[in-house]
Amino acid sequence: MKAKVGFLGLGIMGGAMAANILRAGYPLMVHNRTAAKSEPLAEMGAGVASDPRHLAQATEIIIAMLTGPEALDACLWGPEGAAAAFNEKKTFINMSSVSPRYTREMAARLALTGAAFIDAPVSGTKKPAQEGSLVILAGGPREKIQELEPLLLTMGKKVIYCGGVGQGSMMKMFINLLLGIMMAGFAECLNFGRLGGLDFEAMLDTVASGAMNAPMFQVKAANLREQSYPAAFPFKHLSKDAKFVVDTAYESGAPVPLGQMLLHLYRLGVARGWGDEDISAIAKVMEHLSGK
Amino acid sequence: MKAKVGFLGLGIMGGAMAANILRAGYPLMVHNRTAAKSEPLAEMGAGVASDPRHLAQATEIIIAMLTGPEALDACLWGPEGAAAAFNEKKTFINMSSVSPRYTREMAARLALTGAAFIDAPVSGTKKPAQEGSLVILAGGPREKIQELEPLLLTMGKKVIYCGGVGQGSMMKMFINLLLGIMMAGFAECLNFGRLGGLDFEAMLDTVASGAMNAPMFQVKAANLREQSYPAAFPFKHLSKDAKFVVDTAYESGAPVPLGQMLLHLYRLGVARGWGDEDISAIAKVMEHLSGK
Amino acid sequence: MKAKVGFLGLGIMGGAMAANILRAGYPLMVHNRTAAKSEPLAEMGAGVASDPRHLAQATEIIIAMLTGPEALDACLWGPEGAAAAFNEKKTFINMSSVSPRYTREMAARLALTGAAFIDAPVSGTKKPAQEGSLVILAGGPREKIQELEPLLLTMGKKVIYCGGVGQGSMMKMFINLLLGIMMAGFAECLNFGRLGGLDFEAMLDTVASGAMNAPMFQVKAANLREQSYPAAFPFKHLSKDAKFVVDTAYESGAPVPLGQMLLHLYRLGVARGWGDEDISAIAKVMEHLSGK
Amino acid sequence: MKAKVGFLGLGIMGGAMAANILRAGYPLMVHNRTAAKSEPLAEMGAGVASDPRHLAQATEIIIAMLTGPEALDACLWGPEGAAAAFNEKKTFINMSSVSPRYTREMAARLALTGAAFIDAPVSGTKKPAQEGSLVILAGGPREKIQELEPLLLTMGKKVIYCGGVGQGSMMKMFINLLLGIMMAGFAECLNFGRLGGLDFEAMLDTVASGAMNAPMFQVKAANLREQSYPAAFPFKHLSKDAKFVVDTAYESGAPVPLGQMLLHLYRLGVARGWGDEDISAIAKVMEHLSGK
Repeated sequence: MKAKVGFLGLGIMGGAMAANILRAGYPLMVHNRTAAKSEPLAEMGAGVASDPRHLAQATEIIIAMLTGPEALDACLWGPEGAAAAFNEKKTFINMSSVSPRYTREMAARLALTGAAFIDAPVSGTKKPAQEGSLVILAGGPREKIQELEPLLLTMGKKVIYCGGVGQGSMMKMFINLLLGIMMAGFAECLNFGRLGGLDFEAMLDTVASGAMNAPMFQVKAANLREQSYPAAFPFKHLSKDAKFVVDTAYESGAPVPLGQMLLHLYRLGVARGWGDEDISAIAKVMEHLSGK
Repeated sequence: MKAKVGFLGLGIMGGAMAANILRAGYPLMVHNRTAAKSEPLAEMGAGVASDPRHLAQATEIIIAMLTGPEALDACLWGPEGAAAAFNEKKTFINMSSVSPRYTREMAARLALTGAAFIDAPVSGTKKPAQEGSLVILAGGPREKIQELEPLLLTMGKKVIYCGGVGQGSMMKMFINLLLGIMMAGFAECLNFGRLGGLDFEAMLDTVASGAMNAPMFQVKAANLREQSYPAAFPFKHLSKDAKFVVDTAYESGAPVPLGQMLLHLYRLGVARGWGDEDISAIAKVMEHLSGK
Repeated sequence: MKAKVGFLGLGIMGGAMAANILRAGYPLMVHNRTAAKSEPLAEMGAGVASDPRHLAQATEIIIAMLTGPEALDACLWGPEGAAAAFNEKKTFINMSSVSPRYTREMAARLALTGAAFIDAPVSGTKKPAQEGSLVILAGGPREKIQELEPLLLTMGKKVIYCGGVGQGSMMKMFINLLLGIMMAGFAECLNFGRLGGLDFEAMLDTVASGAMNAPMFQVKAANLREQSYPAAFPFKHLSKDAKFVVDTAYESGAPVPLGQMLLHLYRLGVARGWGDEDISAIAKVMEHLSGK
Repeated sequence: MKAKVGFLGLGIMGGAMAANILRAGYPLMVHNRTAAKSEPLAEMGAGVASDPRHLAQATEIIIAMLTGPEALDACLWGPEGAAAAFNEKKTFINMSSVSPRYTREMAARLALTGAAFIDAPVSGTKKPAQEGSLVILAGGPREKIQELEPLLLTMGKKVIYCGGVGQGSMMKMFINLLLGIMMAGFAECLNFGRLGGLDFEAMLDTVASGAMNAPMFQVKAANLREQSYPAAFPFKHLSKDAKFVVDTAYESGAPVPLGQMLLHLYRLGVARGWGDEDISAIAKVMEHLSGK
């Protein structure tokens, strides 16, 4: 018999992930601060909890997919927070993107409740979330992660074991740093080519024909072609991730010259008011800097 | 009946490309400054010219795949240079990597001879050269490029039309800028992850599972794993290309913040004596900067 | 009659500053974690408190010149911390370098005690501290700062009013950012000139003869000439300040491209183990990067 | 008896410098492409040559203060160019700002004429040019420079011997790199402080009171205060100098991370159309980047 699952946070990502858990046959209870977002899942058969604590009391495995530390703090330790209902029979999986440092602090605090804790942020955005093809970056006790794998694989195509608690978040930063550099690099190169008189489609064709071709370039090129940047991965989130990277690198002593430039460039876009667009709007930063 | 082809420059790339032309049935004459490099092609049936001028006199289409402007200048306008044998019945295809500016200067000078001129650098390194699967970035009159396509496709899988003369070189810079940013970014991310306690294979697995996966990462990861960097694309050449990019961007007004950082990082490696290793040796620069 | 002053922290800076207060005729009580550092001041006539709390009980104006947030937290809120003895008759002046954010958090916490609070970090290092010629960057209520000016001027030649509490720290970051950029720029230029064949003294002469001449260049040039970097301002502290700048800029939206490069360069030096040398040891980073 | 001097180029700098030579009692002949600029000097008693060649024929020491390589090439080797009148009795002093590489090429070409050649660019802008207080950065044979010192000191307060021909230009790049970094750093710091709530005058006061104080900050602060940037040193010239620096550093292997950032920042301003304003207009770039 499948474990009862509670899901906190039903945004673009969380809503799609919770639906996939439900479709896989797990008894599911959900909660979202804005109650209306629970309705589609209720119609699919999920229970709806009035607050995080009731959700935690009624389930065994509690998953959070929230916007950041503030939302997590509120859901766990705020009024009617979930943590007060945690005990050694409960497992908490944080899939929200937060820094490794915050994750380790959260782990220390949760240890007092006796609940098992896994950090499991994801690589992938809206579409993989809907298709259940996310890559799940899991940190925590290896045997616990193996035990949870069937549940995790309802949301993703793969679980990558990243190390102890906090290392899932570390891996998330690693991959988002690469994502950010590739996105900004792609935009810089296309703008450089444009000002050098190259045709946009010919440039894409050259990228697609060679060893640098990555799936993301096809997807993001569509945004650039249409000059329309609906958020699959919000610009301001990558700006925040770049800051996490710089903070973490400062502590570990890792040189991140390209990462620092990334932070600079994404901050320029946030300053121009483009924070809610897609990360591919970095193309607008490049064009803006060139003044033409 | 196929046109007679002359091939100047039989290095790692040129030797493999010339062999593919010969295999496709073109009558071929070759020349290389170091004569010994002509022998394998002579054994395959190619004629060997004693100097560039004799090669140009005896053929209709002359292709150059040389190391840079100095070698090109010597082959074209030096003693027994090819240009003196050019006329309106000859076609010259430069496949060497040079800057758009140099290409346009060369075009102006060659115009006096009456010969047709195409610039057609390639995307791809040793292996695609051997397999005839290069991507050929062609600039020049469109109808002339179409006419030459069968010949070009003996060396490559695809010809991309990039615009007038010089735009092949421009496209080459575009794609090498992207290559350089991705390579340096990959190295920076892996070093950042290493110092953050992540496992090398888990990081590669994360890259390979997501939208950032590009064929080059698989190939270059092998070098990093073995800490061995045999040159498929020499480090110093990418350093030179990064300088071309900065020069060209200065003229066109394109902002290239990541490209400038690339130049800085690759110059550091050249300063350490790693210029003849592969571009993936940028991993050593990152480790070196981190001091551990 | 002069107010009774308590001084916490008798390092290179604090020891010299406390001595100047004493020389100006203020009744002074001191405390330092390592008790031996109190001896010179005791010999000059200062009282010695066994812990911060006794010091705060026995004095009206309490000054801290400590190494950072951890030391401040310990001195204020640790066992026998000073804050427990604060009330509306006490004034606390923090002259230690900390971030504006930490200063504002400290202010909020101290507000509960009723004590007045001024943040007053200094511009200047060892020598100006000894000579009483520091520049004092004061944040807090303007009339309170005016009232304290005679005391502050025993340590410095000038008090600059910077705004409300936290703005003294903000000004300190402003001036240390300029200091860092000028120091790193000076080192970069001298290394650039060296590799271009210029004579060290001729370069200094050129700087000294023109509009770029600043007193710091004379002082720091001596270190570079001797290749000896005894810490007047420790390298690792500037690295920490650069991180404060990047953090603050992230919050305010200020672009700090040179500041980010500064952070990168100083981190490289810390990674090489030069954190305890003077900030002028950035010259070693430049030479090291150039590989010769 | 004083040598006859010819002066080519009567712009803001050249006009003031030529006037100082004349005031010192040297027989002077001048030439400027736009003839009207010769008039003030003619009124002061200078002869006016119809072209560079006549000027060179009629004088012994020929000085050029032109806008760059193109103007120099035209004046020396164009129609009625000066070089055709050079011989072993003539001395040519180039005071225009050009790259060391161009200077060395010019030297090689001039060697054929037998004329002595000195490169002597200046540190200082409009006002020092008028007051005769420039710093003259001289490269060439040391005894020749000593011989010319009385003449040079009519224009400047000091002659600094920089090494062989080309090293005057190298020193000029060294000092302009420092100038550029300090100017951009000053602007970055002031913008950082502004967004952090600091008062402009309080920031200036802090700079002026400490070891970072340099004369240029007082002068340039006036522009920033008035938000008016009349060119004492044109923005586009510093952009050009930054490119020289990056080019020279590429050849010598010097790391110039701050110099590269400088090039990037100044190029942004040129792209916005601010090339003809003063270098202090970099403040507008910083404000523009911050979007507020």
